[in-house]
Amino acid sequence: MREVAVIGAGMTKFGELWDLSLRDLFVDSALKAMKSAGVDTIDSMYVGNMSGGQFVGQEHLGPLMADQLGVAGVPATRVESACASGGMALRSAYFEVASGASDLVMASGVEKMNDGADVTGVLATASDQEEEVYYGVTFPGLYAMIARAHMEKYGTTEEDLSWVSVKAHRNGAKNPHAQFRRLMSLEDIMTSSMVAEPLRLLHCSPVTDGGAAVILCPLERASEFTDKPVKILGIGAATSSLSLANRADPADLDVVELSGQKAYEMAGISASDIDVAEVHDCFAIAEICCYEALGFVERGKGKDAAREGTTDLGGRIPVNVSGGLKSKGHPVGATGIAQAVTVIEQLRGESGEVQVEGANIGLAQNMGGSGASSVVHIFQGV
Amino acid sequence: MREVAVIGAGMTKFGELWDLSLRDLFVDSALKAMKSAGVDTIDSMYVGNMSGGQFVGQEHLGPLMADQLGVAGVPATRVESACASGGMALRSAYFEVASGASDLVMASGVEKMNDGADVTGVLATASDQEEEVYYGVTFPGLYAMIARAHMEKYGTTEEDLSWVSVKAHRNGAKNPHAQFRRLMSLEDIMTSSMVAEPLRLLHCSPVTDGGAAVILCPLERASEFTDKPVKILGIGAATSSLSLANRADPADLDVVELSGQKAYEMAGISASDIDVAEVHDCFAIAEICCYEALGFVERGKGKDAAREGTTDLGGRIPVNVSGGLKSKGHPVGATGIAQAVTVIEQLRGESGEVQVEGANIGLAQNMGGSGASSVVHIFQGV
Repeated sequence: MREVAVIGAGMTKFGELWDLSLRDLFVDSALKAMKSAGVDTIDSMYVGNMSGGQFVGQEHLGPLMADQLGVAGVPATRVESACASGGMALRSAYFEVASGASDLVMASGVEKMNDGADVTGVLATASDQEEEVYYGVTFPGLYAMIARAHMEKYGTTEEDLSWVSVKAHRNGAKNPHAQFRRLMSLEDIMTSSMVAEPLRLLHCSPVTDGGAAVILCPLERASEFTDKPVKILGIGAATSSLSLANRADPADLDVVELSGQKAYEMAGISASDIDVAEVHDCFAIAEICCYEALGFVERGKGKDAAREGTTDLGGRIPVNVSGGLKSKGHPVGATGIAQAVTVIEQLRGESGEVQVEGANIGLAQNMGGSGASSVVHIFQGV
Repeated sequence: MREVAVIGAGMTKFGELWDLSLRDLFVDSALKAMKSAGVDTIDSMYVGNMSGGQFVGQEHLGPLMADQLGVAGVPATRVESACASGGMALRSAYFEVASGASDLVMASGVEKMNDGADVTGVLATASDQEEEVYYGVTFPGLYAMIARAHMEKYGTTEEDLSWVSVKAHRNGAKNPHAQFRRLMSLEDIMTSSMVAEPLRLLHCSPVTDGGAAVILCPLERASEFTDKPVKILGIGAATSSLSLANRADPADLDVVELSGQKAYEMAGISASDIDVAEVHDCFAIAEICCYEALGFVERGKGKDAAREGTTDLGGRIPVNVSGGLKSKGHPVGATGIAQAVTVIEQLRGESGEVQVEGANIGLAQNMGGSGASSVVHIFQGV
């Protein structure tokens, strides 16, 4: 298997971007990634997208986006794994380069959520229709159940959840790409509207439009394009039951643990080697579960990490320095690639105010549904 | 790059299967493929599906199907490229095995189209919303324009189109998996209802439910599982403008030609080496264009091939011995895998009444939209 490097990365501003269409968002991010890599052509491309069909009435995004980008002819594949679509697109792109079949491959993600669709209803199609949707539950409700189970098992409190959101907004306020660049106090969060008890509005990621892209090539060719390549050191993907009720323990995201273990094993490292991480905080409780499932802290200690500063900038392992899904925004199909963009910028030392000093190994973890799919990428600056 | 073999294949009956859900169709085909390969576990899986979201309200098919199959935990990726979703899923699965990352990988395709959705409207989301859908055109209209352009350029007639359908039904009548197992006369076809001039009802593939799956492994391990492995000799994928009006010439499916050339080059063979082929006859005109684009006949001679028996069983190059999309049916996301299943059975000598004697090299060509994406796989019995 050939070693694979990232040689360019780019993303759009995230937000309610009423003037930009699905194709605009893709092209903007793809051109930024190509410019960053210094390439004017690619051999193949992947588009992570959850539901162009339901959000805006457009499927078949591979050839559409290739044509919009001006590279019609190249193979183009759309990959979907709900909110992990971007991460899974990156994984598929990796295999195409690792196999030796192609050299310059784009992995992208894009989602246009603000366009009139019933967003909560569309997102719910990522959960189990027969066992969940028909009974009326949507994602805030599913993650509320995960939060309740975590509270019951580990004593996690609403305040613990809220510190995760405080941290997210503190970081996101410094991110020019973030949807919500404003500080939020503990009180702001703990008095925001209740969405699904115990989750309040400011424990939930927003509805976002955006795109992100990276360019991969064989590591041995990376120096042709950049003097700051980033190697893909490990990948792990896993699935679990789509239906939350069928999991062994709803308080533990077993799918995250399994995907993390695979990635650590492939990379030949452990959690303590990670200098900076982006994890899938679609709801504040998810970030706490991910701390534990990825081994950043012991099981049951995730609740303390944000409050105690363990995962802050300057802490032992800074997590979601981008502001995370909460503050940066969560255009579902783009999120996994945007996480990779953040980590890559960190490892290239290009993160300005939120730069983690000396960051050399970074991790991005992207999740689908209530924890039915998860994919972890580990990157290293070379 | 490791060489890759198919060690098992299976598919459901195709048809209006009101008693079977999307998940039922997947599981039925996946279990048949696993039984055929003699395996009770897989390392990873791909699901080709055009629009579970729009057809039946279910996205996130990777983890759902892994769980339904009883293999929750393994990585599972849904791939979409409209009606070429199955073929592109097979291509992604190939890279995962070829790279060395995984050994036993399932490539599957599934679609549940008969469940109350506005099928024509859903399918239209595979064309260009801004340049086609908003003006009211749907796929029968787009392929009618391709047919008109072909008639203008090459003198193709309605009767030429109709002979393609006669052949499809003659073969499909012998296929126990086919949706329409009945002979159709030239007169039946030429007097069927006009759908979009010059395309009549019996020039159009039907609305179908179905699933299909194959199991891949490294060629060097294939003999552990079967004494009749089939090697994947070549793959070619390509894109063209999503919008028909932006193509250089609507009479020629340039995307099919490009994907075919890439596959022939990788395989180190030419069209004359192909013993049997399945091509994407979503409409009769598409099959005629594919004959030409894949080099089975010269440009402009495609119109004569079915009438003269060139592509019949017993002819120089039998095409769509399964009955093709027209008679076998076209569950869009499953079609590319079902084509592969047909070719693999031919190369294993398991095709009964429609067996092509001595077939050793076979080709499957799967297309998305009005020719915006195409993927060709070339297989060889070993």
